[in-house]
Amino acid sequence: MSELLEQMGTNARAAARSLASATAGEKNTALESMAQALLDREGTILAANREDTETAAAGGMTKAMLDRLSLSPERIAGMADGIRQVAALADPVGEIVDGGCRPNGLRIQKTRVPLGVVGIIYEARPNVTSDAAALCLKAGNAAILRGGKEAIRSNTAIAEALRAGLAAAGIHPDAVQLIPDTSREIANEMMRLHGVIDVLIPRGGAGLIRAVVENATVPVIETGVGNCHVYVDRAADIAMAVSITVNAKASRPSVCNAAETLLIHEEIAPRALPVIARGLKEAGVQLRGCKRTRDILSDPAVLPAAEDDWATEYHDYIMAVKVVPSLEAAVEHIAAYGTGHSECIVTDSHAAAERFTAAVDAAAVYVNASTRFTDGGEFGMGAEIGISTQKLHARGPMGLRELTTVKYIVYGNGQIR
Amino acid sequence: MSELLEQMGTNARAAARSLASATAGEKNTALESMAQALLDREGTILAANREDTETAAAGGMTKAMLDRLSLSPERIAGMADGIRQVAALADPVGEIVDGGCRPNGLRIQKTRVPLGVVGIIYEARPNVTSDAAALCLKAGNAAILRGGKEAIRSNTAIAEALRAGLAAAGIHPDAVQLIPDTSREIANEMMRLHGVIDVLIPRGGAGLIRAVVENATVPVIETGVGNCHVYVDRAADIAMAVSITVNAKASRPSVCNAAETLLIHEEIAPRALPVIARGLKEAGVQLRGCKRTRDILSDPAVLPAAEDDWATEYHDYIMAVKVVPSLEAAVEHIAAYGTGHSECIVTDSHAAAERFTAAVDAAAVYVNASTRFTDGGEFGMGAEIGISTQKLHARGPMGLRELTTVKYIVYGNGQIR
Repeated sequence: MSELLEQMGTNARAAARSLASATAGEKNTALESMAQALLDREGTILAANREDTETAAAGGMTKAMLDRLSLSPERIAGMADGIRQVAALADPVGEIVDGGCRPNGLRIQKTRVPLGVVGIIYEARPNVTSDAAALCLKAGNAAILRGGKEAIRSNTAIAEALRAGLAAAGIHPDAVQLIPDTSREIANEMMRLHGVIDVLIPRGGAGLIRAVVENATVPVIETGVGNCHVYVDRAADIAMAVSITVNAKASRPSVCNAAETLLIHEEIAPRALPVIARGLKEAGVQLRGCKRTRDILSDPAVLPAAEDDWATEYHDYIMAVKVVPSLEAAVEHIAAYGTGHSECIVTDSHAAAERFTAAVDAAAVYVNASTRFTDGGEFGMGAEIGISTQKLHARGPMGLRELTTVKYIVYGNGQIR
Repeated sequence: MSELLEQMGTNARAAARSLASATAGEKNTALESMAQALLDREGTILAANREDTETAAAGGMTKAMLDRLSLSPERIAGMADGIRQVAALADPVGEIVDGGCRPNGLRIQKTRVPLGVVGIIYEARPNVTSDAAALCLKAGNAAILRGGKEAIRSNTAIAEALRAGLAAAGIHPDAVQLIPDTSREIANEMMRLHGVIDVLIPRGGAGLIRAVVENATVPVIETGVGNCHVYVDRAADIAMAVSITVNAKASRPSVCNAAETLLIHEEIAPRALPVIARGLKEAGVQLRGCKRTRDILSDPAVLPAAEDDWATEYHDYIMAVKVVPSLEAAVEHIAAYGTGHSECIVTDSHAAAERFTAAVDAAAVYVNASTRFTDGGEFGMGAEIGISTQKLHARGPMGLRELTTVKYIVYGNGQIR
């Protein structure tokens, strides 16, 4: 293992041990100090960001990507504000999750405690550096951050500010460490720091997630891949179906909780599909339909859907459409192509809603509401570190609680077995 | 991937989908039928087991291992009884873990649901086949089991009985599948069935756990490695320290919640150590001490402890002993050598108990009680599938709840974002 990572790991574990017993008050003071340090160092951060964006522009980065990389005084203020919002959230550490007295008099308290050291691997956006650091810190964890190479100067300046803020508040600055090396080798090494990093959260595209799953020996929480569906049942309210489908697809197509495929029951399709298609078209969405969809719509702009379309997360103003013979067929389609993120049924039938919510295996299953609500803020968590699409530990939006584990504290007076 | 595993994976996912909506009543009927099938096929199972034990004995298996492998009518009755005990436990599926109404009227229900397909890799004991199958089934999961090659005939006969029991109760028999191939290649393939197996639980020694962590792409719950400590504080009741230390070490040295090292505060060591050492000696325990321990005990039978001793899970009547200058030194020793399983402080000081329980990072931290209580039954879970020594998803004894995940079910009336 490289000396760099070994040292960072040792530092992180030491910081985590001291953070574990920090009070909420001490952590909040540190967060306020981190927010202030970002504002104080605005000039340095912007200068570093300018270098990053100039290098990226010269290297031919797309305008959309450049926009995600760019910082401004407003964006830095937004990052500081985000940290202050985390400070305002309740501290999950110390919560007694469960407990009671055993027949032999042992008192068992299942208590929420920090995970320890959390690793985050992410891509271009520099604001993840401060968001992730703030959430990890509030939950009592030390963070080892590994951002993309395009943002390395910005991330370094941000991390330095955050560490200065921590130090000023009397908290071990190694609670937040950014890996300065952006090589793939270091990322692979990081994924194998079993026993040093307690959990690794990759935030990025499907390629990054796959690489982490393939290589990691550290426990991983997979996030963010979303091939989501809206199923319009035969008992749907058509106006509601239009509104939910358009919102789920077109309100923000680039995010993981956006819908990619519309499934529609054959009994309602002849009446509902033309209205929904009109709504989608007005929102700028192109359709790719199955044969029956194209027969019903008879619109040459509706391209035929290929097998690939059912499995594609477009991240774009494109939607696949399939007419299904039954609710069960919709459930089967979702089981075959869904990624277990967010799935929606539009129906007025109680039985259909019950069956859909029971049979569909996903982090969030909606009855008569847009898939776009799968989000830490919308779920009342205040902030999120990502959306888990796996089943271990956390499923769906991950807030502060999901950045903790538990410890059984057992009080006795001499009990033996 | 081998055709065998591919087919078993497909079968398991189909069985899991149908099991997910089985009621507790249906699952309990199936469990009763599985228990009865084991009893009905006692002769076949014993004959298969005889072949296993004869082969193993001819291959030079130790007596202790042969005893673990051997079945008898009583042991088969015990397995059937174990299945009936699982049937008597409350069904975790459907429990609403959390929930409420959002300002926009969305009703969010965080609901407990099965994990899906659970993989279990285990070693010699054939009773794991029925224990694991029963727990997985009660939690609504399909199980793919991979036992050791020494027990393959016994495991096959047991699995056939369980599957016949399932079929008789009208449950998909592929809810329980045993991999007939005991090669290492198949085990490695099984660990990489990402997207097919939802979680993999290795039950066995440190070597097996390491191999799984190293190779798996499927999420893993690590279990069972326990280098546990008893720390006798300066404020300890000496009689209690003797009783707890002897119990923690000697009541069953082969299990993971047995203590391996005694740490003792220097202020109490001169008075307490001779009494504790006498108790351990009477229980047949050999000691390996630090220099101060040997000075205090001045007993030639106490061998010097080497660096390795602090890190060793003896699984035997051997205990390492170290005199420490402070509670903090004990905490540091545990942080350096502990495996995060079970740790105990014996003290009458409230402040010491508070500091120890806060600072020690382990699944279970005891004040004045034996480490031997870390067990699903003792914790009131009824049964356990293993003891997690990692921090994701489950920590400590894993019962039925730990074999589930959650799903957010969200009810709206047309909400969009």
